[in-house]
Amino acid sequence: MAASSKIIGSSLPNIPWQDRKPGSSEIMWRHSGNPVISRDHIPSSNSIFNSAVVPYKDGFAGVFRCDNKNRQAWIHSGQSTDGINFEIDHEPIDFECAEPDIAERVEWYDPRVLWLEDRYYVTWCNFYHGPTIGVGYTYDFKKFYQMENAFLPYNRNGVFFPRKINGRYAMLSRPSDAGHTAYGDIFYSESPDMCYWGKHRFVMGTTIGWQSKKIGPGPVPIETTEGWLMFYHGVLYSCNGFVYSMGAALLDIDKPWKVVARTKPYLLSPQELYECVGDVPNVVFPCAALTDADTGRIAVYYGCADTVTGLAFCKVDEIIDYIKGSSNNCF
Amino acid sequence: MAASSKIIGSSLPNIPWQDRKPGSSEIMWRHSGNPVISRDHIPSSNSIFNSAVVPYKDGFAGVFRCDNKNRQAWIHSGQSTDGINFEIDHEPIDFECAEPDIAERVEWYDPRVLWLEDRYYVTWCNFYHGPTIGVGYTYDFKKFYQMENAFLPYNRNGVFFPRKINGRYAMLSRPSDAGHTAYGDIFYSESPDMCYWGKHRFVMGTTIGWQSKKIGPGPVPIETTEGWLMFYHGVLYSCNGFVYSMGAALLDIDKPWKVVARTKPYLLSPQELYECVGDVPNVVFPCAALTDADTGRIAVYYGCADTVTGLAFCKVDEIIDYIKGSSNNCF
Amino acid sequence: MAASSKIIGSSLPNIPWQDRKPGSSEIMWRHSGNPVISRDHIPSSNSIFNSAVVPYKDGFAGVFRCDNKNRQAWIHSGQSTDGINFEIDHEPIDFECAEPDIAERVEWYDPRVLWLEDRYYVTWCNFYHGPTIGVGYTYDFKKFYQMENAFLPYNRNGVFFPRKINGRYAMLSRPSDAGHTAYGDIFYSESPDMCYWGKHRFVMGTTIGWQSKKIGPGPVPIETTEGWLMFYHGVLYSCNGFVYSMGAALLDIDKPWKVVARTKPYLLSPQELYECVGDVPNVVFPCAALTDADTGRIAVYYGCADTVTGLAFCKVDEIIDYIKGSSNNCF
Amino acid sequence: MAASSKIIGSSLPNIPWQDRKPGSSEIMWRHSGNPVISRDHIPSSNSIFNSAVVPYKDGFAGVFRCDNKNRQAWIHSGQSTDGINFEIDHEPIDFECAEPDIAERVEWYDPRVLWLEDRYYVTWCNFYHGPTIGVGYTYDFKKFYQMENAFLPYNRNGVFFPRKINGRYAMLSRPSDAGHTAYGDIFYSESPDMCYWGKHRFVMGTTIGWQSKKIGPGPVPIETTEGWLMFYHGVLYSCNGFVYSMGAALLDIDKPWKVVARTKPYLLSPQELYECVGDVPNVVFPCAALTDADTGRIAVYYGCADTVTGLAFCKVDEIIDYIKGSSNNCF
Amino acid sequence: MAASSKIIGSSLPNIPWQDRKPGSSEIMWRHSGNPVISRDHIPSSNSIFNSAVVPYKDGFAGVFRCDNKNRQAWIHSGQSTDGINFEIDHEPIDFECAEPDIAERVEWYDPRVLWLEDRYYVTWCNFYHGPTIGVGYTYDFKKFYQMENAFLPYNRNGVFFPRKINGRYAMLSRPSDAGHTAYGDIFYSESPDMCYWGKHRFVMGTTIGWQSKKIGPGPVPIETTEGWLMFYHGVLYSCNGFVYSMGAALLDIDKPWKVVARTKPYLLSPQELYECVGDVPNVVFPCAALTDADTGRIAVYYGCADTVTGLAFCKVDEIIDYIKGSSNNCF
Amino acid sequence: MAASSKIIGSSLPNIPWQDRKPGSSEIMWRHSGNPVISRDHIPSSNSIFNSAVVPYKDGFAGVFRCDNKNRQAWIHSGQSTDGINFEIDHEPIDFECAEPDIAERVEWYDPRVLWLEDRYYVTWCNFYHGPTIGVGYTYDFKKFYQMENAFLPYNRNGVFFPRKINGRYAMLSRPSDAGHTAYGDIFYSESPDMCYWGKHRFVMGTTIGWQSKKIGPGPVPIETTEGWLMFYHGVLYSCNGFVYSMGAALLDIDKPWKVVARTKPYLLSPQELYECVGDVPNVVFPCAALTDADTGRIAVYYGCADTVTGLAFCKVDEIIDYIKGSSNNCF
Repeated sequence: MAASSKIIGSSLPNIPWQDRKPGSSEIMWRHSGNPVISRDHIPSSNSIFNSAVVPYKDGFAGVFRCDNKNRQAWIHSGQSTDGINFEIDHEPIDFECAEPDIAERVEWYDPRVLWLEDRYYVTWCNFYHGPTIGVGYTYDFKKFYQMENAFLPYNRNGVFFPRKINGRYAMLSRPSDAGHTAYGDIFYSESPDMCYWGKHRFVMGTTIGWQSKKIGPGPVPIETTEGWLMFYHGVLYSCNGFVYSMGAALLDIDKPWKVVARTKPYLLSPQELYECVGDVPNVVFPCAALTDADTGRIAVYYGCADTVTGLAFCKVDEIIDYIKGSSNNCF
Repeated sequence: MAASSKIIGSSLPNIPWQDRKPGSSEIMWRHSGNPVISRDHIPSSNSIFNSAVVPYKDGFAGVFRCDNKNRQAWIHSGQSTDGINFEIDHEPIDFECAEPDIAERVEWYDPRVLWLEDRYYVTWCNFYHGPTIGVGYTYDFKKFYQMENAFLPYNRNGVFFPRKINGRYAMLSRPSDAGHTAYGDIFYSESPDMCYWGKHRFVMGTTIGWQSKKIGPGPVPIETTEGWLMFYHGVLYSCNGFVYSMGAALLDIDKPWKVVARTKPYLLSPQELYECVGDVPNVVFPCAALTDADTGRIAVYYGCADTVTGLAFCKVDEIIDYIKGSSNNCF
Repeated sequence: MAASSKIIGSSLPNIPWQDRKPGSSEIMWRHSGNPVISRDHIPSSNSIFNSAVVPYKDGFAGVFRCDNKNRQAWIHSGQSTDGINFEIDHEPIDFECAEPDIAERVEWYDPRVLWLEDRYYVTWCNFYHGPTIGVGYTYDFKKFYQMENAFLPYNRNGVFFPRKINGRYAMLSRPSDAGHTAYGDIFYSESPDMCYWGKHRFVMGTTIGWQSKKIGPGPVPIETTEGWLMFYHGVLYSCNGFVYSMGAALLDIDKPWKVVARTKPYLLSPQELYECVGDVPNVVFPCAALTDADTGRIAVYYGCADTVTGLAFCKVDEIIDYIKGSSNNCF
Repeated sequence: MAASSKIIGSSLPNIPWQDRKPGSSEIMWRHSGNPVISRDHIPSSNSIFNSAVVPYKDGFAGVFRCDNKNRQAWIHSGQSTDGINFEIDHEPIDFECAEPDIAERVEWYDPRVLWLEDRYYVTWCNFYHGPTIGVGYTYDFKKFYQMENAFLPYNRNGVFFPRKINGRYAMLSRPSDAGHTAYGDIFYSESPDMCYWGKHRFVMGTTIGWQSKKIGPGPVPIETTEGWLMFYHGVLYSCNGFVYSMGAALLDIDKPWKVVARTKPYLLSPQELYECVGDVPNVVFPCAALTDADTGRIAVYYGCADTVTGLAFCKVDEIIDYIKGSSNNCF
Repeated sequence: MAASSKIIGSSLPNIPWQDRKPGSSEIMWRHSGNPVISRDHIPSSNSIFNSAVVPYKDGFAGVFRCDNKNRQAWIHSGQSTDGINFEIDHEPIDFECAEPDIAERVEWYDPRVLWLEDRYYVTWCNFYHGPTIGVGYTYDFKKFYQMENAFLPYNRNGVFFPRKINGRYAMLSRPSDAGHTAYGDIFYSESPDMCYWGKHRFVMGTTIGWQSKKIGPGPVPIETTEGWLMFYHGVLYSCNGFVYSMGAALLDIDKPWKVVARTKPYLLSPQELYECVGDVPNVVFPCAALTDADTGRIAVYYGCADTVTGLAFCKVDEIIDYIKGSSNNCF
Repeated sequence: MAASSKIIGSSLPNIPWQDRKPGSSEIMWRHSGNPVISRDHIPSSNSIFNSAVVPYKDGFAGVFRCDNKNRQAWIHSGQSTDGINFEIDHEPIDFECAEPDIAERVEWYDPRVLWLEDRYYVTWCNFYHGPTIGVGYTYDFKKFYQMENAFLPYNRNGVFFPRKINGRYAMLSRPSDAGHTAYGDIFYSESPDMCYWGKHRFVMGTTIGWQSKKIGPGPVPIETTEGWLMFYHGVLYSCNGFVYSMGAALLDIDKPWKVVARTKPYLLSPQELYECVGDVPNVVFPCAALTDADTGRIAVYYGCADTVTGLAFCKVDEIIDYIKGSSNNCF
C-alpha cells in the first residue's frame, strides 16, 4: 500500500540527498557532513539553527535564525546552489512594515518559509509584548515586508500550509506562555486574508515519552496522497531538563485538524554530539523540509542543540508507512 | 473641566443607585446592601460572582457565573426589575452551536454582556483545550447561540467594545497561560465579522503596587466625551497570594490601544469581609457596568472573593477627573 | 430504595444531634454551636482540630489533635458525656513503645480512633523520617501502646476499617510527599497481623472542582447495607491556595477498592467564618463519625481552618441516596 | 528570681497601658481597642502597620509605614499625646540626603526608631536596587536626614541597639533575597561610625513550628538586668502561605550574638479577625516597644495582617521568666 | 586488617574482569571497553541502562532496562556467556500475574535481580498509580511471574537482601514522590512472605556534596565478613541539574538498618563522555554487582547518562578498607 | 585611538602567552593546551576551577578552588614557574583566624588574589551561615591569615581593587540568595580598614542575552589609561539551565561605580567540549588576570564547566576598543 504514497508537489531534482547507509534500518538518517551549518558561519553569529530553506531559482534560498554574540536572536536571509553550502547575509533581515505600532524589533526567531501563490512568505516567532507569530513576505530574499502578526501573544511555531484549504489560508501554531512554557499543543487556524484569523481548532496534544511535555509543528506540511505530512517536535522533561525530538503525523487533507496517524516512536532524537552538546543540550528541532515529488525524497533541516543546523533524509512512502504502522510498533 | 465629561449613551433612569455617604470622599463607593447576590442564590450554586448585567426591556437581564457545588464554573441567565434582586435560572445556559468541533462543554466563566447592533452578545472564558474567549449571542436571554471562539488559547477576559471602531468589531482581552497565570497585559483586537480577528495591539501592562502582577479588562468600555472609560482589575502578588483590585483608564476614542490616562491608586480594593474572605480571599473583580447618560451615574457589578457579587457606584465626571489627575496624586 | 439504606452497627441513642433547620434542603448541616471545640480549650493549645471521637462507656472518648503554642502537633486523650463538651488532657498521649527505633516523638497529628475486636485502635500521622501512619491502641484512653508504623514514609491519613475484610485487617491511606503534597489518591492495604501490610490497591483519585487536586480518607468507614460509606476530604487549588471540602463515597463491601458511587458536589465546603479564617484558611477536614444504627443518624467531627473542631449531621438513607444520585445532579 | 528582672532605662509614667484581663494567664495581652490605628487613618492610606513609636517631649512621636492606595510603601512622621491616638502626616517623610547616588525614592517600609546619644535615629527597609537597610535621623520629627545605607542588598529589618556596645554602634538585621524570601536568620553587625559596618555575627536562626521558616528582629532591644530583651517575629509556612507570629529572646548584654534564652511558644499569633484578615492574612509583626523602667511595663506596637496597627502589653519580669522557662513548657 | 575482609558467597571464576591500570590509585576503575552495552543494542531501543546481571548456568543472565524509541521504559530479559556481550530479547518481559488489579502495564524500570532460595527474583520500579516496587520471579529468564507490589506508591529502587535476615525477607528502598523527587533516603523493610511488608526502618539519609540531595540503594547487598556491602547512588543538585554518583556503605549484618561505615568521597562520578552526555547528562547509577568470593573481585554494572551501560571493578578488601577509612580521607 | 590605551601597572615579561591564530578575528582567544589544569591534578581533587593566579617572585603563585571527591569546595595554595604548570598543595589552606566565632570551616570557593600594599590578599566565597565574602592574606603562600568577613550573607564574588580609591579600600561583589540565585548585579563597597564596609553603590545589572539573568565581577580590575578594566561573567537562563559567559566593562577610575562602557557581545562563551561538558555544563567563569604593562598582554584564567581551568588571551588596546565600540556592533 505504502508504495503508492506520493508527494503532491513539484520536482526538485537537485534536492540535497544522501542514501541511507547500507545495512541501516533507520526511517530517517542524518547527513554524514552534519552539522551542515556551523555556529560561526557568519562573523557575528553565536549559533545558526532552527532555520528554513526553500527552492529558489536554480538553487535554494532560506531564512536563518542567527543568534549573535549578544545571544539575541535574529533572522537572516541566505542563498545556496546546493542546499548545503549557504551564503548567509551578515546583517539580519530588515522588514519594511507599514504599521509602526508593530514594527519595533526586539527578537526574531525560528522562521519558516514557503512559496504561496505569488511570493515567498515567512513566519517566525516575533516578540511583540511577548512571543507571537510574525508574518512577512519577500519576492527576492533581499527586500522583506512585514504584515500583521497572526495572533495575540503568546505563541510560537506558526507554520503556514502551502496552499489555501477550503478557500482560506491556514496555519498551524503552538500557543505558549511568556517563558519556558511547560505545555504545548498544536492548533489550526484559518484566515480569509492573512490579516484576520479564526476558526481555531485543536489538532493534537502531548502523549507519552518523547512527546509527553509539549509538541509543536515543524516544517511547512507536505501534501501527499495520504494527507498532509507534518513533521513536528516533541519534548520530554527529564530531571535534567527538556529533550527535543522529531516525529511526524498525517493530517486529513481537507480538515487538517483531524489526525489520521502519528508516530509513537520518535524519528530522530538527540544522539550525536552536536545534538547533545551546545547552548541548549539535547535538542533536535525541525523547521523546514525540501521535497522531490518525482522520487519521494524528503530532506529535513533541523536545529541541533540550539547551536548548529543539521540535515536528515527520508522517503515519503517509507515514512508514511511508518507513521501509519507506528501505533503498533512499540509495546 | 471635568464637569463637562459626559457619557455618550442612553438614559437609564432606573439604574440601581445609592448616593455617596455624607462626609465620604470616596470616588467609588459600595452598595450598603452588599453583597447584592449571595453565594447560594440558586439551589445548585456554591458561589455567584464575576457576572454581567445589562438593561433589558423595562428592567435588567444578565449572565451570571454560578459555580456549582462540584466547584465547576457555568454561566446562567437571569433577570431583574431593579438590578439588585435577580431571578437566576437554575440550569446553566445551553448554547446552540453549529460547529460540533467547538461545542463541547467543559467550563465557562467570567461572562460579559452587551447590546450591539441588533442583539445581546455574550463573551466569556470558554475552556477549549485551555481557556479562551467564547462568543455568543441572545435575543431574549432564553435562547443562546454560540459562535466561533475569538482566539486561540490561552486567553481570559474577552470584552467587546459597544460599537464598531473604524468599521470593525473590537475586543479587549488578556492573553494568559494554562493555569494561575503569573503575568497579564491588556490587548486590543479587531474583526470584520466576529469570526476572524487580527490587528492585535498592546494596550497597557502592569506597573506597580496593586497592578504590578497582572491586569485585565473588566466591564464593556463606556463611551464618554473624553474617550473610552475602561474599568479593569489589577493584581498584586503578596507573600500570601494574589490580591485583585479595581482601577480605571481612559482609552483614545478612535485608537483604543492608546492610553490617555490611568489610575495609579486603586478605586476599590478588598477591604470588606465579603471581599476578603471566601473561596478566593482578597478579590474585587469588575465585570459589568450600567450607565445613565443623563446623570452620569455608573453602577459597577464586581465579584467578591470569587464567592458573591457586589455593586459599587461612581459618577462619570468625578471618575474621569480622578483618572486624569491620579498620576499626580501619589508620591 | 434509599429508605432501605441502613447502618450495620450499634445503637447510639445518645449520639449528639440537631435536626436539620426547617426549610433547609442541605444533605449535611452544621451544629448551631460550632465550633464545638475552641482553639484554646486547654491551656497549652494553639488549636484543636482534625480529631477523632468514639462511643466509650456511657459517653464518649476521643483522641484530639492539639497543636501547642510552639505550633507543634500532638495528640491528646479526652472524654465527654455528650460528645460536645470534652475534657481533654493537658498533656499529650505518651505511648509505650517496645521498639526504641521508632519510639522517638517528633510530631503527631490527624488521629483516627475505632473499636476493633477487643480494644480501641488509634492511627495517626506519625513523623518517622517523614510523615507515615502510626498505629497504636488503648483499652481505657489513659494508657496507650504504640505498634509498628503501617507504611514507609511518606503517607498521611491512615484509616482502619472497623472489621476484618476477607480475614485480614484493612486500611485506607493517602501516600504523599515530604511536604505540602500537590497530589493525593486513596489506596487500600491489607494486613494479617497489623504489622506487615500488602495487597495495596488503588481506590479512587482526583476528578474535578473541589476534589481536583488531592483527596484523602476521613472517618473510619461506616458499614451500611449499600456498602462502606466513606467520608473523605477533597482539595481544590486556587490561585490563593488549597481549599479543603468534604464528600462521601460508597465502597464495595467485600472489595472496598471498588467504588460503587461517589459525590460530585461537595457535602460541606468552607463557608462559615470559623472554616474560612484561621491558621490555614478554607479547610473542612473530617476525621471521625458517630453513628446510630437505629435512627440512621450520623454525626461527623471535622477540623475547621486547622484551628477549631466542628460537628455536622446527616442521615444515612439521605446521604446514600445523594451519593448514588450525585453523578446526575450537576451539569 | 524573676521578680528581680528590671528594665535598665527611663521612666515612662504615661506609657499606654491596660491591665491583663482578670482570669487570663496570657503573658502578653492585646489592647481592647485594637487595632489602635486603622487602615484609612490618613486620606491617602490603604493601610498603616509595621510602625515605630518612641517617647517624645511630653508625649510620643513615631514613624509609620503608610502604604498608599497605589499599594506603594512609604514612611510618615506622626505624633501623639497618649501613644494611642496619632496625628500622622499626610505626606511621607522627605529625607534630605547629601549623596544623590542613594537618594532616589523607590519604596520605604517597616521603620524602627530610637533615641541614641543626641537624636532620634530611624532605620527602615530601603529599596536601593533591592531591599536594604536605610539609616537616617531627626531631631524634631519634622526634618529628617538620610545617611548611607548600612548594608548591601538584600536585607530587611535593620534594628539598632539603643547604645554603643563595646564602643561601637550595633545593629541586628535579617539578610534576605530579592523577593518573598523563603529563609531568614538574625545577624549582628558593628560600626565605629554608622557608615561602615562589619564584624558580622550570626545570632539565631529558625527552629520549629511558628518560627520554622524565617525569623527577624522586631523592636529596638530593651536593656534589662538579664540581658537584651529582643522581641522578634517568626514565620511558619503552611500550605496556604506564611503565618507571622511574635516571640522574644534574651541576648547576652556584652556579646549580643550569644543567645541566653528564647521562647519556644509564640507570645502572640494571628487569632483576632484584624490579624487574620487583611491585605496579607495571618500576620503579627512587632516593630516598636515602649518601656517604663519603674513599673516594668512594656507596650509593643505590631502590624496586623499588613493592614492595621495593634498594641499589646507585658511586664518585664513575667516575660523574662517566661523566656527563660519556655524551653521547658512544651512537650 | 582489610586483607581479612572477605566476600561470603560463591565462587565466580568467570566474573568479567580487568585489572586496575598500572600506576592508578583508583579504588574503583572502569572497563576499558565501556560502555559495554550500547544504546541501540536491540532494534527498538533508545537506550539500555540501569540493568541487572546475575550468574546463570555457565554464564550470565540479566534483566535490562530498555527504553524504546517512544521513550517508554520496559525491562527485557537477556543472556551472556561472558557478562559483557549480551543477547537481549527484542520484546519486553511479559509477566504472568494472577491479580488482574495490578497487572496493567504502564512503565517498568531500574530492575534488580538475585538468586534467593530456589529461584531468581526480580524487583523493579513498577508504575501502579505512581511508581512503586514491583516483585516477580523467574526460573529460566524466559517465563516471569509477577507477585504483589511490595509497597504503596511512591517508591523507587527496591532491592532485596540475598538471604533472609532474622527469619524474614528484607528489602531496601527509597520512598519518593510522584515526579522528579527532590529528596531521598534509604529505608529497610521486612516481610514474612514477600506479600506483606512492615517493620520499616530508616537506614541512612543525605549528607553533603555528591550525596546531599538524595540517595538510593544500588545492587543487591553483598555479604562480607565486615557486614553487608551496599553500593548506592547519591545525587547532588547543581544549578544545571542533578548529578548522580556512586558510593558504598557497610551495614550491620544482623540489623542492616545500622550503618557501620560509609564513603564520604564518591567511588565513581560522571567524568567520561558517555556518563556526562546522553538522555540525562551526568548520571552514574549502579544496579547490579557480580562477586567472586575466591578472589574478592567485584564487578558493578551501572547506567551511564540514562543511555548506556558501563562496568566498573573493585576488590572487596580494598573497598571495605576505603569505606571504613573514608571518614578520615577528606578535609 | 585605542592604540593609546595602556595598562597602568608592572611589567610581566614572563606572562604566559600565545599569539592569536593567524586569520582569526577573535578579540579573546583560548590557549591551545586548554584546559591548563585538569580535574584530577591533585590526588584528592574532583575538579579544579574558578582559581586565581598572581605573579610571585620569579614565577607565579595562586589560590585554587579544588573540589574534593566529597564534592566539597576548598581552596588550595599553589605555585608555578610559567603560569601554566602548577604545583598545587594536596591539603587545603588552613587559615589562622583570631576570631573563633567565624573560624569554622564549612566550604570555601571561587578565590581571588592580589598584591596590595605589602602582602597578598585573598578573597573568596566563605560559608558562614550562608555564602559571604571571606578576606585573608598571606606573605608567602604558605601561611594564611583570615580576617573578618566583609559582608553579611548572602554574597558571592568579592573582588578587591588593586589599590585604595579615594583613600579607602574598595571591593566589588555580587549579593545573592542562599541557593542557586536567580538574579545578580555588581555592587561597589568601601572600607577604611578592611574590617568595616560601607558606601555601597550599584555598579551595573543585567541586560539581555548572555548577561540577562545575572552578572558578577571576575578578576581583580586592571587599571588602564581608560579606566578600570573589569572582566565579568554573565548568565543566560535557557530552558535547560544556566549558561555562563565572559564579558568586560570599563569603570570610571575615581568613581568605579560609574560604568564607562560595557560589552554587548560576550568575549568568550562555552563552546569547547571542556567548557560545555563537566560537573556543571556550559560554564566559562573568569577569576584572575595577569597583565604585562609593557606589551598590553592580558592572560585570563577561567573555570570551565565547574571542572577544569582554562586560559585565554587578549590585548589591552584591542579589548578596550572593543568594549567602547561594542554598543554598536550588534543589531
